[in-house]
Amino acid sequence: MREVSIIGVGMTRFGKFLERSMQDLGREATWNAIEDANVPVKDIGVVYVGNALAPQLTELKGTIGQHVLTEAGIFGMPVINVENACSSGSTALRGATLEVASGTCDVALALGVEKLFCGDTARSAAAMAQGTTLAKFGFMFVALYSMQLRKWVEQYGVTKEQFAKVVVKNSYNGSLNPYAQFRKPMTIEEVLNSRVVAEPLTQYMCSTMGDGAAAAIVCAKEIARRYTSKPLVDIAACELVSGTFTFPDEAHEPITSRAARRAYEKAGIGPKDVNVAEVHDGMAPAELLLYEELGFCKPGEAGRMIDEGRTTLTGTIPVNPSGGLAAKGHPVAATGLAQIAEIVWQLRGEAGPRQVSNKPRVGLTENAGGWASDDNAACAVTILKRWE
Amino acid sequence: MREVSIIGVGMTRFGKFLERSMQDLGREATWNAIEDANVPVKDIGVVYVGNALAPQLTELKGTIGQHVLTEAGIFGMPVINVENACSSGSTALRGATLEVASGTCDVALALGVEKLFCGDTARSAAAMAQGTTLAKFGFMFVALYSMQLRKWVEQYGVTKEQFAKVVVKNSYNGSLNPYAQFRKPMTIEEVLNSRVVAEPLTQYMCSTMGDGAAAAIVCAKEIARRYTSKPLVDIAACELVSGTFTFPDEAHEPITSRAARRAYEKAGIGPKDVNVAEVHDGMAPAELLLYEELGFCKPGEAGRMIDEGRTTLTGTIPVNPSGGLAAKGHPVAATGLAQIAEIVWQLRGEAGPRQVSNKPRVGLTENAGGWASDDNAACAVTILKRWE
Repeated sequence: MREVSIIGVGMTRFGKFLERSMQDLGREATWNAIEDANVPVKDIGVVYVGNALAPQLTELKGTIGQHVLTEAGIFGMPVINVENACSSGSTALRGATLEVASGTCDVALALGVEKLFCGDTARSAAAMAQGTTLAKFGFMFVALYSMQLRKWVEQYGVTKEQFAKVVVKNSYNGSLNPYAQFRKPMTIEEVLNSRVVAEPLTQYMCSTMGDGAAAAIVCAKEIARRYTSKPLVDIAACELVSGTFTFPDEAHEPITSRAARRAYEKAGIGPKDVNVAEVHDGMAPAELLLYEELGFCKPGEAGRMIDEGRTTLTGTIPVNPSGGLAAKGHPVAATGLAQIAEIVWQLRGEAGPRQVSNKPRVGLTENAGGWASDDNAACAVTILKRWE
Repeated sequence: MREVSIIGVGMTRFGKFLERSMQDLGREATWNAIEDANVPVKDIGVVYVGNALAPQLTELKGTIGQHVLTEAGIFGMPVINVENACSSGSTALRGATLEVASGTCDVALALGVEKLFCGDTARSAAAMAQGTTLAKFGFMFVALYSMQLRKWVEQYGVTKEQFAKVVVKNSYNGSLNPYAQFRKPMTIEEVLNSRVVAEPLTQYMCSTMGDGAAAAIVCAKEIARRYTSKPLVDIAACELVSGTFTFPDEAHEPITSRAARRAYEKAGIGPKDVNVAEVHDGMAPAELLLYEELGFCKPGEAGRMIDEGRTTLTGTIPVNPSGGLAAKGHPVAATGLAQIAEIVWQLRGEAGPRQVSNKPRVGLTENAGGWASDDNAACAVTILKRWE
């Protein structure tokens, strides 16, 4: 298998764009990535397109990728449309990486695109309520998550204030990110005093709907220099697993830990080697739990980690410098590739006012999707290394 | 890249199964393939699941593959959900093949599953009407296809009787296939006298809705003998392209010809080497056009080919021995893998009363998907070779 580098990334701003189509969003992210990579379209051998909810929300009911790419003026090559709920974007990256690594082509495009705002918020919300047994009883995602969460809160002594600190950190980072949906820094009080969605979760602890797209161009490392003179970022691992989200002490190992273990092994590194990370903070407590599951701290130490500011832009291991899902927004299938874009910019030193201060060489993304209560989830952990 | 063999295939009968869930159909096909391959579930390293229409028709709105596999008692490994309209099944096979060829795992499962009958036929039909500009004006697939078709009919002198002969052949083959949705052999008169859907297409020339699933287990050839003592069938090529369906003399080369050319080149063979084929006869005329586009005869000779019976079970190159889409049925994403299952059975000599008589060593499948009028289609051509 050949080594694979990311030679270009691009994204749209995330937000509520009633006037823009999914195709339009996909076109912008795709061309941003192509221009960043300086690669001619004819050199792109295969395209993976992640999308999760278009069949419910738009009139496009199949071959979503082809519809989006045609709008971007790109067609002819194999297009593989992939879906893995919120981890659809990472699934697209994994596919593109495998194509290049195995030599089916030298350059591949991974695109994640989502259009959730359709002018009828109730319809959008319904589309996102997955069809499980529990959903039939009215248990929406946040309600279930909060129920599972309480046991962890009790056992490990994490506090609502610590959840709020995650949002404070991420909203500050988002305020520095021109691609973020929400750019207002928040205080602990604002987070704690926002509307309770499902105790202990308040409104600002939960990510919202968004429209947007993000893309990456991957390339065989051996020829990457034909295209770009920017620092090369290698894909050291892109590991996907399926299974169950669990909290500590439950019967199964959390899907996130399993994915992380595989990724660290593949990349030949450990958690201590990671300099910057983008993680899936669909709810603020998830970020704390992920500090532990990804090995950034020991079990039970996540609360102290946020208290000590170790994951801020100037901390020892900045987490969600982009603002994360909470501030940057969460257009489902675009999220995984937006995380990749952020890490590439951070490793290249191109993140502007939100550039982390530890001169990162190794970055990690964690992108999880699926329903919390069933065995139907997916999780991808990707490790990127700056090469030169 | 390693050589890859298919060591097991399985499918459900295709049909209208109001009492069965998509999960139930997927479970049956998956386990049929696993048992045929004699492979322990723990050895399956990755699963690709093709599905096209569940988001519109069932309550499962994401991670379709995980939902289906959990019902089958299979979870933990990476699951990649893929969609490419009617070619979703072949897209799943292509993915599984690439994983094994590149060495990410030794054994992979490809599953195609579709549940179209939901108790409300109008809803099912609406879900299948793709969202294109033309669809907004009421042009459904069959209407558009018939309009494009007429030019070809005029230029090449193909006749309605020849279209009917395709259906007669395929309905006879289907009558011998226990997996087929329709098992009644039809006469030319019955086909011609059935209701006109869109001149020159009559009802029996058009494939219908169906429920069903089909699966294949692919394995690195070097270790295939650990599992099975059956004849091995190698995947000599599995080539996917995207683009436009066209008729002869239009500006772009047909997507099917492009996919076929790539597949022949990859497999190191030509059309003359193919002994048996399953092709995408969504409408009966498509099979004739495919004789030409796949190189089984010269342009303009397809009519004569069906007249001379060269594609019957006892002909020189039997086409659609399973009954094809017309008789076997067309549960969208299951079709590509059902074609694969049929060719594997034919190459192994296990097709029973519909076994072709030319002792085939090389088989081909052509599986196309997407909307006829736009640049949003996909087509996969797969070439299988019996190894020993």
